[in-house]
Amino acid sequence: MQRIAVFASGRGSNFRSLLEAERSGGCPGHIVLLLGDKAGAGAVAYARGQGIETFVVPSKKTKGRLSLEEESAFRDACLAAKIDWICLAGFMRILRGPLLEAFQGRIVNIHPALLPAFPGLDAQKQAFDYGAKLTGCTVHLVDAGVDTGPIVVQRSVEVLENDTVATLADRILEAEHAIYPEALRRLLGEKWERRGRRIVFQPRKDKP
Amino acid sequence: MQRIAVFASGRGSNFRSLLEAERSGGCPGHIVLLLGDKAGAGAVAYARGQGIETFVVPSKKTKGRLSLEEESAFRDACLAAKIDWICLAGFMRILRGPLLEAFQGRIVNIHPALLPAFPGLDAQKQAFDYGAKLTGCTVHLVDAGVDTGPIVVQRSVEVLENDTVATLADRILEAEHAIYPEALRRLLGEKWERRGRRIVFQPRKDKP
Repeated sequence: MQRIAVFASGRGSNFRSLLEAERSGGCPGHIVLLLGDKAGAGAVAYARGQGIETFVVPSKKTKGRLSLEEESAFRDACLAAKIDWICLAGFMRILRGPLLEAFQGRIVNIHPALLPAFPGLDAQKQAFDYGAKLTGCTVHLVDAGVDTGPIVVQRSVEVLENDTVATLADRILEAEHAIYPEALRRLLGEKWERRGRRIVFQPRKDKP
Repeated sequence: MQRIAVFASGRGSNFRSLLEAERSGGCPGHIVLLLGDKAGAGAVAYARGQGIETFVVPSKKTKGRLSLEEESAFRDACLAAKIDWICLAGFMRILRGPLLEAFQGRIVNIHPALLPAFPGLDAQKQAFDYGAKLTGCTVHLVDAGVDTGPIVVQRSVEVLENDTVATLADRILEAEHAIYPEALRRLLGEKWERRGRRIVFQPRKDKP
């Protein structure tokens, strides 16, 4: 069973959706560690309540790159816990080096837009203000850029005429909760390969 | 009845889908003129066969901006035909001035990607090579940029594991044939307004 660490800065709704998927048999891995940069984050409290180990490197910054020291501390915690896959789930900080090197190709992120459209912060508001009629969410492998890595799964969400940024973001979040477990299931449970920057899954055979 | 001109450089499959929509009552306008930059284009021959007036300004260029003289000739033809709306339908040349000024806010284009992702040429291949799992097509109003104008309608198309650029482009084209008439129907037949760069349609009331 592959061991998964989840990074979260906020309330941790994607973390919960991954946990629920694991418990209902919908994720072929085991979430063993929750890491964060805010001791008071809802995700940390939720992990503790669920008996999942937590590791926090407190930071006053709420966005931007991790310092080398912070990222090295996270890396060491993941190495000590023998982590196979890292899921960024509303982790607001940008990785720069140590984690990317130690877990190359095994770090996954979820982004609330159909990348490569609307990368970076406030993606839902970016899409709304642009006047997109479709937006959505993307699970992708993390590379050294911001939201630039190879795409695993995407799902579209329609922008409705009476939407606000908040109502749109709510529906995108629902879609995130569906595709993050789906992406992990595919990455960990199916055969796939990289072709250039494409991730190509082997066509699924129908079960007899 | 609002008078529509269609611009096409190629075989004109989107032109045909607009014509078919008009004839089946699915477009609240009347296509009266087909304009192009290639005398031998399939779209021109089709228009003639259907008894629709054509206007061609032959050019050896296959892409890039129109010259001022070329664009002025197209503008004058549209003005003479008392055109209300212009639909670019696989017209490979970029407008720069005279048409945009004369028909400001009344020129529509269709693009084979979910803008703002993958603007410009070969959008289907761009999306395929990027490894997008969802792409699609966009109908938008034309402004002075390349594929940057306000969005009217978008539809998503899934990239399948066994797709090639050609099979993907075929499915996107099918979606184009559905949304271009839909976009015209909404623009010409519904109430809408601009808010910033958003096009917001008035919510449709259920018919009694």
